Amino acid sequence: MRAPHVHKILQDKALSRIAIVGVGLLGGSIGLALRARGFRGTRVGIGRRATSLEAAMQYGAVDEVTQDIATGVARADLVILCAPIGQFEGLMRAMAGALKPGTLVTDVGSTKVEVLRMARRCLPRTVRFVGSHPMAGSEKTGVEFARADLFERAVCLITPTSRTAPADVKWLERFWEALGGRPRVLTPQRHDALLARVSHLPHAVATALVRLALKDSAIDLAGPGFGDTTRIASGDAALWTDIFRTNSEAVRKALDGLIAELTRFRDKLARDDAEAIFEWLELSRRERDAWVARRYKKEEFPT
Amino acid sequence: MRAPHVHKILQDKALSRIAIVGVGLLGGSIGLALRARGFRGTRVGIGRRATSLEAAMQYGAVDEVTQDIATGVARADLVILCAPIGQFEGLMRAMAGALKPGTLVTDVGSTKVEVLRMARRCLPRTVRFVGSHPMAGSEKTGVEFARADLFERAVCLITPTSRTAPADVKWLERFWEALGGRPRVLTPQRHDALLARVSHLPHAVATALVRLALKDSAIDLAGPGFGDTTRIASGDAALWTDIFRTNSEAVRKALDGLIAELTRFRDKLARDDAEAIFEWLELSRRERDAWVARRYKKEEFPT
Repeated sequence: MRAPHVHKILQDKALSRIAIVGVGLLGGSIGLALRARGFRGTRVGIGRRATSLEAAMQYGAVDEVTQDIATGVARADLVILCAPIGQFEGLMRAMAGALKPGTLVTDVGSTKVEVLRMARRCLPRTVRFVGSHPMAGSEKTGVEFARADLFERAVCLITPTSRTAPADVKWLERFWEALGGRPRVLTPQRHDALLARVSHLPHAVATALVRLALKDSAIDLAGPGFGDTTRIASGDAALWTDIFRTNSEAVRKALDGLIAELTRFRDKLARDDAEAIFEWLELSRRERDAWVARRYKKEEFPT
Repeated sequence: MRAPHVHKILQDKALSRIAIVGVGLLGGSIGLALRARGFRGTRVGIGRRATSLEAAMQYGAVDEVTQDIATGVARADLVILCAPIGQFEGLMRAMAGALKPGTLVTDVGSTKVEVLRMARRCLPRTVRFVGSHPMAGSEKTGVEFARADLFERAVCLITPTSRTAPADVKWLERFWEALGGRPRVLTPQRHDALLARVSHLPHAVATALVRLALKDSAIDLAGPGFGDTTRIASGDAALWTDIFRTNSEAVRKALDGLIAELTRFRDKLARDDAEAIFEWLELSRRERDAWVARRYKKEEFPT
């Protein structure tokens, strides 16, 4: 791995206090990455449970902690919501009165349209909200799994609207880049439609596969392939309930698409059409290999 | 990892010559594991391509190689078919006349009913055929990925019929155990029905997910979860075509089961039934975690 590059943006004097709301795997990793990448200001950890906040301090993920969100965000230049989406509305209402005018507020939630609606309802017009979604993490939760390099090479999605100032988008792009990520900008609507297919649908499928495997204890014959395919089904169920509910329409559309695709494959099997079965498998094999090459290998030789 | 235990079965004088037909990832790993676990006889590698056989020799996976299957199996006490299932019938016919009476023939193919039918059609009654299926391997192919510890803790399925001698089943159980595996005995029919759900269906689903992700280049936003869920879709398409075709009925039944399960989940989403969505996710999370604990952790402290 390359030595962490110190990015100017993290040493800007206008960024002296960053509030991380929810210091789990993602929030904790942001804290660790900030320090590793050269941020010298104050990282404030905000959470509901004293034990989690103590752990965050012990792991060096934050410099200060508080259970009072208003106190925590009061002097922050940047606020990052890292709690489950289901808590966003309450958190936004609780912080609204305490935010300084001009504060940039972002989040790391897995759906963006509904989060934007909440921000419009709950946050004052004096602050700027722009959604983010780093494609990093795992089925694990808790600051004990946080890593300073979690965002290395991770695609970090930024979802401005027509009302977002271009300078804020640019700034967030540099911010995620400073933590090691690869920023990509798209609208909240497009984000939710595409993520339904590459993130939410795989989660639903992994969950369904586990369920089917329980019958006759088939699961006890499963090998490493099954383990990988279903890994994400070990993710937090409450967190994923919120994700599915806040992107319900797009997920249902993605489910319909998958069912249609599986039905077409079923027909090829029923016809015992060797060539069609092979072509169906081969296209995905080739395209996935190409994706792996783009996603992982190229980064070893940055241009 | 525990030090490899030398098992008596591998030092039995009645087992002095083992023929491995197809020295790729699985065949090569069997060869490496045999040596690592104390087998001092001769490992004969049989294959179609001279370059693959040379590589198998270079990696120390076998002691001798030949492209002539009759020569390769002629004096073998045990023959293990490690080629793709699509080649089995031709290989069995080619070896039939050369096998010594009493030779035990097994395989590592992913479906068992059809393989058994081939063995009945093609092998002489003087040899004993019992199917095996070690749940090990990856989407990679080739002897360069072979590992002596590939079968460590892997479930190794053995599929006798009513005509199989119990002593042969017992012997194969000890054999896979000697290579580090955890043997499980079941009928070929039950094998194919259960594997359709925990292995073949996940492969079809991973392939379908990649295909859906290609539209609008959604795949370029995908993160590590997508990578894991679809990993097996990078497997060899020709090999998997054979697997699907030789277990077509059970796979179609499994596809129907998955489509029904996804349709039920779609209904919960449409009703926005938070509790039902949570329960659906939570059951799979809990059961998968329990499976991981059984599959991996317990083995660290063998009873």
